Amino acid sequence: MSEISREIIETFENPYSQRDYSIETICPEFTSMCPKTGQPDFGTLTITYVADQKCFELKSLKLYLQQFRNYGAFYENVTNLILDDLVAATEPRSMKIVAEFTSRGGIRTNVTVEYRS
Amino acid sequence: MSEISREIIETFENPYSQRDYSIETICPEFTSMCPKTGQPDFGTLTITYVADQKCFELKSLKLYLQQFRNYGAFYENVTNLILDDLVAATEPRSMKIVAEFTSRGGIRTNVTVEYRS
Amino acid sequence: MSEISREIIETFENPYSQRDYSIETICPEFTSMCPKTGQPDFGTLTITYVADQKCFELKSLKLYLQQFRNYGAFYENVTNLILDDLVAATEPRSMKIVAEFTSRGGIRTNVTVEYRS
Amino acid sequence: MSEISREIIETFENPYSQRDYSIETICPEFTSMCPKTGQPDFGTLTITYVADQKCFELKSLKLYLQQFRNYGAFYENVTNLILDDLVAATEPRSMKIVAEFTSRGGIRTNVTVEYRS
Amino acid sequence: MSEISREIIETFENPYSQRDYSIETICPEFTSMCPKTGQPDFGTLTITYVADQKCFELKSLKLYLQQFRNYGAFYENVTNLILDDLVAATEPRSMKIVAEFTSRGGIRTNVTVEYRS
Amino acid sequence: MSEISREIIETFENPYSQRDYSIETICPEFTSMCPKTGQPDFGTLTITYVADQKCFELKSLKLYLQQFRNYGAFYENVTNLILDDLVAATEPRSMKIVAEFTSRGGIRTNVTVEYRS
Amino acid sequence: MSEISREIIETFENPYSQRDYSIETICPEFTSMCPKTGQPDFGTLTITYVADQKCFELKSLKLYLQQFRNYGAFYENVTNLILDDLVAATEPRSMKIVAEFTSRGGIRTNVTVEYRS
Amino acid sequence: MSEISREIIETFENPYSQRDYSIETICPEFTSMCPKTGQPDFGTLTITYVADQKCFELKSLKLYLQQFRNYGAFYENVTNLILDDLVAATEPRSMKIVAEFTSRGGIRTNVTVEYRS
Amino acid sequence: MSEISREIIETFENPYSQRDYSIETICPEFTSMCPKTGQPDFGTLTITYVADQKCFELKSLKLYLQQFRNYGAFYENVTNLILDDLVAATEPRSMKIVAEFTSRGGIRTNVTVEYRS
Amino acid sequence: MSEISREIIETFENPYSQRDYSIETICPEFTSMCPKTGQPDFGTLTITYVADQKCFELKSLKLYLQQFRNYGAFYENVTNLILDDLVAATEPRSMKIVAEFTSRGGIRTNVTVEYRS
Repeated sequence: MSEISREIIETFENPYSQRDYSIETICPEFTSMCPKTGQPDFGTLTITYVADQKCFELKSLKLYLQQFRNYGAFYENVTNLILDDLVAATEPRSMKIVAEFTSRGGIRTNVTVEYRS
Repeated sequence: MSEISREIIETFENPYSQRDYSIETICPEFTSMCPKTGQPDFGTLTITYVADQKCFELKSLKLYLQQFRNYGAFYENVTNLILDDLVAATEPRSMKIVAEFTSRGGIRTNVTVEYRS
Repeated sequence: MSEISREIIETFENPYSQRDYSIETICPEFTSMCPKTGQPDFGTLTITYVADQKCFELKSLKLYLQQFRNYGAFYENVTNLILDDLVAATEPRSMKIVAEFTSRGGIRTNVTVEYRS
Repeated sequence: MSEISREIIETFENPYSQRDYSIETICPEFTSMCPKTGQPDFGTLTITYVADQKCFELKSLKLYLQQFRNYGAFYENVTNLILDDLVAATEPRSMKIVAEFTSRGGIRTNVTVEYRS
Repeated sequence: MSEISREIIETFENPYSQRDYSIETICPEFTSMCPKTGQPDFGTLTITYVADQKCFELKSLKLYLQQFRNYGAFYENVTNLILDDLVAATEPRSMKIVAEFTSRGGIRTNVTVEYRS
Repeated sequence: MSEISREIIETFENPYSQRDYSIETICPEFTSMCPKTGQPDFGTLTITYVADQKCFELKSLKLYLQQFRNYGAFYENVTNLILDDLVAATEPRSMKIVAEFTSRGGIRTNVTVEYRS
Repeated sequence: MSEISREIIETFENPYSQRDYSIETICPEFTSMCPKTGQPDFGTLTITYVADQKCFELKSLKLYLQQFRNYGAFYENVTNLILDDLVAATEPRSMKIVAEFTSRGGIRTNVTVEYRS
Repeated sequence: MSEISREIIETFENPYSQRDYSIETICPEFTSMCPKTGQPDFGTLTITYVADQKCFELKSLKLYLQQFRNYGAFYENVTNLILDDLVAATEPRSMKIVAEFTSRGGIRTNVTVEYRS
Repeated sequence: MSEISREIIETFENPYSQRDYSIETICPEFTSMCPKTGQPDFGTLTITYVADQKCFELKSLKLYLQQFRNYGAFYENVTNLILDDLVAATEPRSMKIVAEFTSRGGIRTNVTVEYRS
Repeated sequence: MSEISREIIETFENPYSQRDYSIETICPEFTSMCPKTGQPDFGTLTITYVADQKCFELKSLKLYLQQFRNYGAFYENVTNLILDDLVAATEPRSMKIVAEFTSRGGIRTNVTVEYRS
């Protein structure tokens, strides 16, 4: 099973750090593996943050998220882990991630995690 | 008529209990029996909670809810009972259940119950 | 013209009166008569309340509302009257009715009334 | 129980009878009574026709349909009866009625009837 | 496991058998059991037919379909079986059933069967 | 160019003035003229108010709004003017108007004005 | 009452007359007057045609349709009249107009007319 | 890069082979790799077929499709290849696959392939 | 004003030319200039074709369409021109383009062109 | 690469400056260039403001925004720059811009910036 490296996330300097403003990035093509069944999971991640000095670069975010393609983790773990990694990489004023997973066995789950500096 | 056992609900340890975060589980295939008419009722349950030390396991939640398939109860009873059982099983920081039942005789009903520790 | 009797509304004992919770009942098949033109009006009533000791029984609510089928009343009257009758019958902690009427002459009207004990 | 009179339907001369063209009239506020339960039924009628010499007048169509407000009839009867009455009144080149009734007991029914001269 | 009895289906005399017309009945609350996993399946049945001498009665159709609540059968079987039973009970000019089942494991299935006399 | 007369607005006595409740009237067929281009503008007005002693009568509201059919005014003017006229006519406890105009040159505009007594 | 002039419609040479292709023009802001009630009517016109040598110019079509703003005509008349005028102006290989009018008294009407050369 | 094995597809005997009927299976969680960019592609497959003697089993279909998770192929190849494999496995009377891929660079593509015996 | 070069369109060999199948490519980000007003136009192109020996490559299609960004042409011209260029580049068995342009002055236009070999 | 001039933005005197009211202008046809890839970006801008003495004129706003057609800038820059320019031109009591960009590589981004005087 592959490992997740947060070093992949690249940042650029926030061009308007003097102003609090919100960036929302929506990733409807997230996929990981269920560690219990070995089956793929699918979901949509919505990442909203107020940057401080650093914004994440979108292409590197995509490559970071693609690491989960063959990685096994439960919904709650995966969402908290991504928050930790993005907070570490960008040191934002605040960040929120909503992860909406597709239905399994007639049940679907959304996980919402938040960070405030 | 069958009995409802809350012992069926299994839990796992909340992997990020140091952080308050929200888990929303949506079950659109809930069905029980009307105790008055003997006819089946259908509805969607949306369970939202902030876990403390325990999260409910989804497969066991499904089996717990399937106990209602041949169980007779009114909307208000069923929703409050499920809240009581899930709170007892997981001892969450807070929990909310919205139950939306399908139309009967041109009228439909939603019940919203909440628990705060 | 027929009369409206609030005695038709039956109640049952709130099974969880120790907890504040919300019951929302949606009636999309409401119809009454316009007292000015004699033409039928159509609308959707959404009744939301926190019960105290009594909940209204749905079949009796339906029969209560069917009394308006040949009853003439303006939108504002009808909505306030139903609130008064349901409050009298159930003595709730709070109740809100939103009545959305269909379009007449290219104009449509919604009336929202609220009761707090 | 009230009677249905087709004499209420007024017509006007088709202003372009030299051309086959289609008139579709949609009535989402149709209501009648169920002869079995005594409960009101609700539905949407869509009447599509190619007029010959006569078009039905909309205000009189509305009054004609309002006769069903306190009239008891099953879905299949009501739809065929309205087709018969409108064909008798307007003698069209063709006419089709789709009646879509609202849900009862978790089941809903649409009836489609057609006339060709 | 329960048995399915087609004798439950009651019919009434087609009130307009001289005319070919279509009756469409939609049942969004169909549920049966998967014989392999023992888990409940859910789906929507749309039954469209041109009656000859007999129409099925809706209340009895509902009771007929409720027999499947604790009956185990695969999608393809269940749909063909219902067609056979309804054709036997009503001897229609033609009948079509579309069964749309909810998602399992990220995959959902619709089955369409038709009968022509 | 025609003039706008607020005298057209008729009122009736608020039947439940002892209770604060909200009346929302939606007019999707509003049209006026652009004073710059001479072209017609189209929009939807949503008027929400808490009446004090007087409610506006819907037929007279319609006639009042039809005066704008050949009247030239910019979006901002028209919305504020209607608020002023309706406030003068009904002396409400509060009133809000949202005017949503259709797209021109790939751009569309909504204006929201409010009055509080 | 104003007159309708078809001379307003300007055309340009079909740039690809060697090929049969379809042009669909949708006008959701059509308005005329009801000759019976004096009230404005609103609707959406969808004009689809295969041009021969001439296409209508859109700005002139708009001005042509604006002539109906204060013109009284019934739905059936107006739709057939516009077809006649556009056919006269552009001499197309074929043309179809669907006019969808907004609801009046709970009833709405669509008129479909077609021309084939 | 992994290989695709059609041997994974299991079948069961068509329970109603005497009747032509249609089975539609929708797989919204299909994913493969772009051989040019190495980036994952996502899409929805809709497989519709009339079985002869054999139906494909859903769990094995899922496993068959999961082989594409780390397999590189262009849209056109992948869709035709899946048709070939499913036809070989089930020998149907007819089969159709519609593959709808998500947007890349502001452009999205659907591929439709059909087999008739 | 820039020129349109059809040489930009690259093709690859149809991998399944022995089978007639359909490829649909949807481009919602098409933009060109109106030659009359100098204003930008926006639209969605849907290109559907049955390839013979050659398929167009998507990246090159995108670059081809971007040439229209600063190019002035009427709706009818632009759609026919793109069809001619794509037919010349790919020599398909058949091709159809539907171009849906956004609203201007309250009117919007769709153009549909087809090629058959 | 072209320059952006804020001098293009024309204003007119706020006709109701004595009242705080909100103007929302929605521009779904915004397009600029990505400075990294040279590819066009597309998005919808929603500008909401409470004017003080000056409102922006819509035709000049459109011309101002068209300057970005061949201008290269990242999402965060472009949104903040437009806010700065519109604030400088109109000196509003408050202003908010939401920019929603279309999907690139399966990821889309919205930027929200606000100004308060």
